[in-house]
Amino acid sequence: MRRLPALLLAVLAAPAVAQEVTTARLDNGMEVVVIEDHRAPVAVHMVWYRTGSADEPPGVSGVAHFLEHLLFKATDDLESGEFSRVVAENGGSDNAFTSYDYTAYHQRVAADRLDLMMEMEADRMNDLRLTPEDIETERQVILEERASRVESEPGSIAQEQMRAALFLNHRYGQPVIGWRHEMEALDMDDVLGTYDLWYSPNNAILVVAGDVEPEAVIAMAEEHYGVIPAEPGLPERVRQQEPPQVAARRVVYEDPRVAQPYLVRSYIAPARDPGEQQEAAALLYLAEILGGSSFTSVLARELTFEAPVALGSGAGYSGTALDDATFGISVTPRPGVSLEEAEAAMEAAVTEFLAEGVDPAQLERIRTQFRAAETYALDNVEGLANRYGAGLATGLSVEDIQAWPEILQAVTAEDVMAAARDVLDERSSVTLFVSAPAEAAADAAEPAAEPAVAPAAAPDAEEASQ
Amino acid sequence: MRRLPALLLAVLAAPAVAQEVTTARLDNGMEVVVIEDHRAPVAVHMVWYRTGSADEPPGVSGVAHFLEHLLFKATDDLESGEFSRVVAENGGSDNAFTSYDYTAYHQRVAADRLDLMMEMEADRMNDLRLTPEDIETERQVILEERASRVESEPGSIAQEQMRAALFLNHRYGQPVIGWRHEMEALDMDDVLGTYDLWYSPNNAILVVAGDVEPEAVIAMAEEHYGVIPAEPGLPERVRQQEPPQVAARRVVYEDPRVAQPYLVRSYIAPARDPGEQQEAAALLYLAEILGGSSFTSVLARELTFEAPVALGSGAGYSGTALDDATFGISVTPRPGVSLEEAEAAMEAAVTEFLAEGVDPAQLERIRTQFRAAETYALDNVEGLANRYGAGLATGLSVEDIQAWPEILQAVTAEDVMAAARDVLDERSSVTLFVSAPAEAAADAAEPAAEPAVAPAAAPDAEEASQ
Repeated sequence: MRRLPALLLAVLAAPAVAQEVTTARLDNGMEVVVIEDHRAPVAVHMVWYRTGSADEPPGVSGVAHFLEHLLFKATDDLESGEFSRVVAENGGSDNAFTSYDYTAYHQRVAADRLDLMMEMEADRMNDLRLTPEDIETERQVILEERASRVESEPGSIAQEQMRAALFLNHRYGQPVIGWRHEMEALDMDDVLGTYDLWYSPNNAILVVAGDVEPEAVIAMAEEHYGVIPAEPGLPERVRQQEPPQVAARRVVYEDPRVAQPYLVRSYIAPARDPGEQQEAAALLYLAEILGGSSFTSVLARELTFEAPVALGSGAGYSGTALDDATFGISVTPRPGVSLEEAEAAMEAAVTEFLAEGVDPAQLERIRTQFRAAETYALDNVEGLANRYGAGLATGLSVEDIQAWPEILQAVTAEDVMAAARDVLDERSSVTLFVSAPAEAAADAAEPAAEPAVAPAAAPDAEEASQ
Repeated sequence: MRRLPALLLAVLAAPAVAQEVTTARLDNGMEVVVIEDHRAPVAVHMVWYRTGSADEPPGVSGVAHFLEHLLFKATDDLESGEFSRVVAENGGSDNAFTSYDYTAYHQRVAADRLDLMMEMEADRMNDLRLTPEDIETERQVILEERASRVESEPGSIAQEQMRAALFLNHRYGQPVIGWRHEMEALDMDDVLGTYDLWYSPNNAILVVAGDVEPEAVIAMAEEHYGVIPAEPGLPERVRQQEPPQVAARRVVYEDPRVAQPYLVRSYIAPARDPGEQQEAAALLYLAEILGGSSFTSVLARELTFEAPVALGSGAGYSGTALDDATFGISVTPRPGVSLEEAEAAMEAAVTEFLAEGVDPAQLERIRTQFRAAETYALDNVEGLANRYGAGLATGLSVEDIQAWPEILQAVTAEDVMAAARDVLDERSSVTLFVSAPAEAAADAAEPAAEPAVAPAAAPDAEEASQ
């Protein structure tokens, strides 16, 4: 074992973080984050690649996700399927996910199996051995996945159409899973192009959390990952950025399978950026204030309790993105209320909010909720590991991630209103109407047997859970 | 001079074409089209490259057009600006244009100056010598062009936003001139990337029209262009194609500079495809029937003469595209009629047309107009040269181009209705509203001093005239 580069090894502990977080960087550029939590003899092992669907070349949408699937095929040391079988045989569980900005692989195992996980994960970082049959069979799998997750779900289809209209230029407008016609044409060259370019230690973040010792983890990482050469041709992540958005857009999706009409308005919004997370923090408050689960949210109060407009409403914001994020508001009208009427009521409620400002008591309640949530988050070592992985993969530093709870606590009413005025500009939004076609709606005028379900509060959540 | 490859030299004359058209292909792959017209001692010399803004890599929108500008800079034989100066000194005129699918350079000169044109055009196909100063100064020129042609024109801004919403995946959604923030970053590498990849004889079409002899033109082409080596790495033109469009979109653009509100609905439509031009021909009829300049068009009749809804209306279709084309309808409401009301009236008129079908007398009038237009077109040798250049650059064959007048004459009422039912599907459309903001509109309630102008009949015309 080589000596660790001592200067690169640092123990960082922000005031609100109970767990000790240790970071290092291997000589080949791989970042290492170790989060100690000795309450249970378990370890979470994750490798995050700084590449996702928004890094794909044109015309091959879905290739990042396709490759994620193929990473469970054979390597020079493992048979196809052996990876997951070994994890299971060792009492662990494993999974992987792809998003716009990253692709991640993770296992949860007994802490003494960490070395085995690293050995296998390092193997498939560099030594994947795909066959033409792998491509053919797994392509069918991802097409099935698209059929079941998107094409069978009117809300997913509508969401896909909405994002394509929201982003004028950025590849965030293309679905992570891919457009079917492009997925059907994905071939070995497309897959290896992504693998050879982006799957390298200098583009990867190792996150290990649980009952582990940082020095030992870093030594183990040196042994397994440190021997993989850096990719000298690793490209910069330069994506097409949005031009000024100057025209409000609307998308109308009709599908006979829609039992309950609803509308979503999605705005382009700033993401958490390195050293600049204040507006993102304020937008999280704004989402809670407008459409949080509390009965005191602006939309619930105005559209459900003070007027019989909506069955449900919500607002959502996720600031974890390398480029732009989105802020969404959704309303599910009561039977007999049209989407147009619901939209007008939603706009009136937002306009009133912009004029009247934040209710100080509501703001403090939310601040307290966030403080509690951040405290509880420290107990969830896997969630914490996800935070570091997703944060680092979207351009934040460890310091940014650790500063977040404090930044969240420091948000003022003025910050919220400034963020609201900045983001709630219809010109940089899409309004989506989802309903059954008129004929189908007439058929469905009888009370629905199943209860109406309001759309998720975060209408723009990414494919993968975080 | 080498012997011409006799098998590749063919004289093609379709029945309706009075001019003799001769085609050949040089050994290096360059296509040659010669159109004889001996009525005046003039020649038009054009080189068309099969590359346009839709072939650009992501993030460098505008580079195809930028390169077009830079082709007037120095080569190893010519000083910067010398090209156009020499053309002018020889009594000619020259120009160039960039579109989604092609970039073209043309000169009109006395026929005995053709050799000089070829010498200079061949020189800049291969021997451009750009300096960093060229990049800096010409970038300012294209930014100024964007400022004057797009940013100073509310209708152009709106059109740009509309196209970005119309195309979900295809690069046709990006403006030919480029997004400003990407234009500002265009550099020498971006420009040379396009030049080295696409500006090659095997990606070029030479069109010479006028008082010339085909054998002599082809010999001259061999001498000047035939010596340039083919680009072995010329890529296929594979672009991102559209997924199924399943949700109607709307774009609302408000700008205080808009004196007269109007609306445009733009649909994705089939283009003229090799061997399959019938639907495109039918769509040209449909555009005339719905919104042609005649007072008998459906929209003029229903919205202007039978009801006081519109000041003007129009419909447009241009089928010359490598991938999808667009079909557009526009309505300019009378003062006092809202855009919503005008849209409802437009939809009612189109619905009525779809139910009632084509008026046979109107169809025959349009057929006669097209026959006349096609006959007159033969007199315009420059227009004819454009047809061949644009047609070949968008994937048509010479035979397709020559078959077009007959295909156009053979369109039936059933063809028109089938095309209408195929294309006029709101789910694959964007509806654009352009108006001044409400406050500005109130200010403008006084009768406008200048006469209201209806938007162009072809709302989706490309940047360059053809």
